[in-house]
Formats: sequence, C-alpha cells, structure tokens
Amino acid sequence: MVDWSVYLVTEQRASAGRSTPEIVASALDGGVGVVQLRDKALPVRDRLAVGREVRELTRDAGVPLIVNDRVDLAQAIDADGVHLGDDDLPVEVAREILGEDAIIGRSASFVEDAIAAEGTGADYLGVGSVYATESKADVPDDEYAVGPERVRAIADAVSIPVVGIGGITADNAAEVAAAGADGVAVISAITKAEDPETATVALRDAVDGGRNRE
Amino acid sequence: MVDWSVYLVTEQRASAGRSTPEIVASALDGGVGVVQLRDKALPVRDRLAVGREVRELTRDAGVPLIVNDRVDLAQAIDADGVHLGDDDLPVEVAREILGEDAIIGRSASFVEDAIAAEGTGADYLGVGSVYATESKADVPDDEYAVGPERVRAIADAVSIPVVGIGGITADNAAEVAAAGADGVAVISAITKAEDPETATVALRDAVDGGRNRE
Ligand code: NI
Repeated sequence: MVDWSVYLVTEQRASAGRSTPEIVASALDGGVGVVQLRDKALPVRDRLAVGREVRELTRDAGVPLIVNDRVDLAQAIDADGVHLGDDDLPVEVAREILGEDAIIGRSASFVEDAIAAEGTGADYLGVGSVYATESKADVPDDEYAVGPERVRAIADAVSIPVVGIGGITADNAAEVAAAGADGVAVISAITKAEDPETATVALRDAVDGGRNRE
Repeated sequence: MVDWSVYLVTEQRASAGRSTPEIVASALDGGVGVVQLRDKALPVRDRLAVGREVRELTRDAGVPLIVNDRVDLAQAIDADGVHLGDDDLPVEVAREILGEDAIIGRSASFVEDAIAAEGTGADYLGVGSVYATESKADVPDDEYAVGPERVRAIADAVSIPVVGIGGITADNAAEVAAAGADGVAVISAITKAEDPETATVALRDAVDGGRNRE
C-alpha cells in the first residue's frame, strides 16, 4: 500500500543549494510516502545520475519512486512508475511499456479530465494547482487555482487516490486533506525548508489532522 | 543493410508550412535511406502522433526510423532505434531498454568521442557540425565546424558507419562522402526544399559522386 500523505516532487534548483539526494534523504527521515524525480531543468543524463542515487535511498526506505514525464528514465533507474501530464505520453502508452505493476499517475485539473484519466488506467491523480503558485509558470489561468472545492469534486468523482499539488504548505495541507485528497504533493514546502525532515513531519501531521476532519 | 547515403532529420518548424509526414513521404520517393524523427519543439504527445504516421510511411518503404533522444517514444511507435547526444541517456542504457537489434546512434564531434561511442556499442555516428549551421544554436564553438578533415579522421578511427551532419547541401555533400562518410544527414536541405523528393535525389547523386572520388 502506498502512503500518499506526503508526496515530494524534487527540484534541485529550488533546494537552497542542497542536492536532490540530500533533500530526499531528509524527507525520507521525516516519513515522506512517495518521491517523484522531477528536476526538469537537468539534462536527462544528469537526471539519470541523480535518479540512481534517489532510487537507492527510496528503495532502502521502502518508498515508491516515480519519474516525471520520462518513461525511459523510469526504466533506466528501475523506478516504480511515472507521472504524466497533458503534453506527455498517454497513460496507455506508458502502461504498454512499463507493464501492469507500474504506478502511473496523471495530472488533472478538471473533473472531466480526472474521470478520463481514471478510464485510461491511471493509478492516481495529481490535482492542481490547488493554490496559486509560481512553480509552473506555464499553467493556463483556469487551472489556477482549483481550490479545495475542486479537489473535493474530483475526489468524489474517481475511486483512485487523489493528491493535491500546488501552493501547499503545512498551513493549508489540512484543508486539502479535509477536502478528500489522499495526500499532498509539494516541491518547495520541503525542498526550500531549512530542515526538510521537520517540514515533512509537519505536513504529515497537517494531513492527518485534515483527514480526521473529513 | 541500412543505406546511410541520405539521412533525413525531421523538423516541422523548418518545413515551409508542410507537415513532417508530407516531407518524409516526398523524401522516401526520392530514395532517402534513413529517417530520424526529431521535431524537438513539439511536446512528446504530438511527436507521438507525428511519429505514428512517419512509422507507417517508413515501414511501407522499408526504411529505418530513428527517434531523436527519447527511447520511450521509440518504443511507443516501434521505431528501429534512437539517436543520442551528450545530454541524452547513455548508449548502454538505451541498449538495455531497446535490445540488441535496435539501431543506436551517437553524436560525436571529436575522434576520442567517436572511439568512445563505438566502444559503448553505438551502431553509427552522427558527426558534426561538418559546416557552420544555425540548426543547433547551443553547439559549443569547437564543435563548429568539424569540416571534412575531421570527418575523415573519425571515419578512419572507427569501423561503424559515419554520417556527416550540419550545413550539408547538394553542393558540399560530395566532399563529405569523399572524406569517408557513409552518408549525409540533413534537415533543411530536404525540409526547406521546394521539392523534397528532387532535393533527396540531388543529395544521393552528390554522395554517390563523392564516394567514387574517395
Ligand atoms: Ni475517492
């Protein structure tokens, strides 16, 4: 069983000078449940090197490792799956390549897209941006921001796990969980934290608190 | 046996308003020997759609289809192989994913790199830029331009096929073939041509002429 409560998306550029493996190691100590290797600014050859390190760390911790976008990179580092957006390979194509056991996630900002993604065999959804954020400069206005209400609508419409993403911090994570999300995906709330371990613990506590309010 | 004489690299942005499948169909009529799906500006989901069309055309013509960079896209469209550069997945990693029968090409601008690429199992080399070109804005100065002399040095140093790339036209293709290249890879000499078929024939003729001078 995957623990979706706190889902870390890596971004070395936003890690205050620390490496992605450093951030991941600290987040794992704090109980992060899923790690997504993103680091989109890195050439894939460098992401391969970082990914191999992160694969060792996550494997030792028994935590699933998901790769953003690149199905081939997921194969190369023996990741557990991929996370796909609108511009990426379709879920069915990734499934054909990676097989039944892979964890394939899909971004969705609208209820219709969420239902469609579930229909194509996505294993979970990343729903966002929940709150306004600058992490994705190229997100259209109407996906900005979906808010806890749309998280709730999507969580009600699908039976696969839903993870809220975008602008989530320890201050608003409870609200996202209370809206029915199975967890929260964050970049900077962990990568920019002075202590990523403590930040992860705080997010977990917030999600647990919100879940009890659901 | 692959006929390396004329190797088309696709780029819809540089195709004078025509689609990549249109260009490929015309180049196949002109006797192009290899097609590489590049179209780097397109999101991978769109490259998938274009690639599926190009796969049909090349399969009907019995011509190998190579995908630039993305091993997963090559798998998705059942391409014959991939072409990899310095920033891409290493040849060994692509080989592991695609298997022994895949055609895996590697870019190389220096003799040492060419020998190293052959050592890692590359099936052919793309050597360039042979002449100055604006196709790749981010190529370092000292890879600019390698000239026919370095093509010769590399062709002499390795036993795998060598294809010259960068700034090649029907006017200088003979010189590249005379330097020992097995063929010439072009984007705009075909994609921007008023008639890609005729342009392909002219390139073939030039390569054949240069080969006889070798
Ligand atoms: Ni639900």
